[in-house]
Amino acid sequence: MIAVDWGTSNRRAWALDGAGHVLAEIGDGEGLLAVKQGGFARSFADFAAPWLAAGRSVPVLMCGMVGSKMGWAEVPYIAAPADLASLSRNLQHVAFDGGARIAIVPGVSCIHDGVPDVMRGEECQVLAVLAERKLRDACLLLPGTHSKWVQVKDGKLASFRTYMTGELYNALTSSGTLAQLMEKSAPDRDAFLSGLARARQADAGALTHALFGVRTLGLFGSLPRSGLSSYLSGLLIGTEMQDATAWSGADAVIAVGSPKLLDNYRIAAEVFGLAFEAHDNAALLPPALFMIARDAGLVT
Amino acid sequence: MIAVDWGTSNRRAWALDGAGHVLAEIGDGEGLLAVKQGGFARSFADFAAPWLAAGRSVPVLMCGMVGSKMGWAEVPYIAAPADLASLSRNLQHVAFDGGARIAIVPGVSCIHDGVPDVMRGEECQVLAVLAERKLRDACLLLPGTHSKWVQVKDGKLASFRTYMTGELYNALTSSGTLAQLMEKSAPDRDAFLSGLARARQADAGALTHALFGVRTLGLFGSLPRSGLSSYLSGLLIGTEMQDATAWSGADAVIAVGSPKLLDNYRIAAEVFGLAFEAHDNAALLPPALFMIARDAGLVT
Repeated sequence: MIAVDWGTSNRRAWALDGAGHVLAEIGDGEGLLAVKQGGFARSFADFAAPWLAAGRSVPVLMCGMVGSKMGWAEVPYIAAPADLASLSRNLQHVAFDGGARIAIVPGVSCIHDGVPDVMRGEECQVLAVLAERKLRDACLLLPGTHSKWVQVKDGKLASFRTYMTGELYNALTSSGTLAQLMEKSAPDRDAFLSGLARARQADAGALTHALFGVRTLGLFGSLPRSGLSSYLSGLLIGTEMQDATAWSGADAVIAVGSPKLLDNYRIAAEVFGLAFEAHDNAALLPPALFMIARDAGLVT
Repeated sequence: MIAVDWGTSNRRAWALDGAGHVLAEIGDGEGLLAVKQGGFARSFADFAAPWLAAGRSVPVLMCGMVGSKMGWAEVPYIAAPADLASLSRNLQHVAFDGGARIAIVPGVSCIHDGVPDVMRGEECQVLAVLAERKLRDACLLLPGTHSKWVQVKDGKLASFRTYMTGELYNALTSSGTLAQLMEKSAPDRDAFLSGLARARQADAGALTHALFGVRTLGLFGSLPRSGLSSYLSGLLIGTEMQDATAWSGADAVIAVGSPKLLDNYRIAAEVFGLAFEAHDNAALLPPALFMIARDAGLVT
């Protein structure tokens, strides 16, 4: 089968053998933003051409924003609690006549006080970790543009919270009065720790207030301008961690993400007294999609 | 004398008679961003040309970012608590040979837990309100790109907190995943109230989490896309007000700002049970600068 992670900015695909082992991997920058509505079938045919052949019908399972309104087909979210079975039962098949049977995994939603939260793609990584570690109860963290903290109960993805940590970091370091003061430089660990510490202070005030401190610490020379982006990163990750640990009550977290992001969160977890276990997300999606495909009878 | 408010984006000036009454007003978009370093004297000479004449020496008092590192001359902040006398004693004179004696009012700083906070220009508005209302103790609010909440004690500007409310609103409505979903439209009062209510909920979570709700409420159709920017505004102003009222302990606030901003804050204050009094900031600066000039002996 072919496993695909098709996101907003990038996509990756893996060719798997009958036991789910990765035979080959490809990837490019043709995320949703680069594909015209109605152009997904053609785009995929080009992308996966080496693995497709007329007359055959290879099973393909996709996850990520490809299942959103902006994607190939909008696959309705399934409501948490969700598990392998509920994802497998709710795959959505899309029309494709180029030598493949294609299905998309649904995303998962939950609601807190009338406000929905959503994920697309992360649910597969969560399932993969649960299967690999044989866990029934855990707190998972998937850092990124929109970081997710996930509570797993009794083997199910029970509830989660999203934080716009990465997006806010990107916005505030690219323009505006904080970005103006920042100098590009290598990560500054001390400044990162200062930002984390600020986020933990009981009377640090609202985030919109604490953000102004990034500016004034630079203006007064209390932090070098080369350290301001690391301080901001610490402040935002600390704000996320402070809230997420209070919400989840967790004293240990299993993080799934890219190695660079995981490093920052590992330091933060130490400061917050949280046991930390890290997984590289790139390794997790193929087995997760294989598991779902098998459960759904797409592969036997 | 001539009173000048010279900010980052705009500048305004007023010609005042010997009793401090406004005779004429001018303004343009030549804020700091439009003036080259070293070009302030020339820029001011052109701006105020009708009011300047060789052989005379009219007193000019300026406030705002013109006294910052990016401005005409960097005037050191004076540390809170500050009052009329401490501002008047610390005016900084700048060289000008075009028929005027020019001084700049210092900004004010305070420090909380090692993190500085600063203002430039707002201190004059605060003094003006205190003088006009004959107040010794009050909580003031100056909404804007960087909103300020100010505690006045015993006639002095004792302490304050800045919130990047306006800047964050501008950033999040101009690009990124929230802006993508927003439709331009008239203010939506119901959506604004929903945002305020969300900010008051005890378990709404960190702001970076609540911000993601702007996206999901739009995705799920719980709010019309035309209402998302008003909801965001309510969420950010509510976050500011929640924090500032806890910090100040105030049950009444005197707000100084532009009429449009004041309307939003008036609604928010009502929701938060805060007595609200509003002043148009445009009317306050000339008397404030006149008061300081007289106290400093620039005018008699």
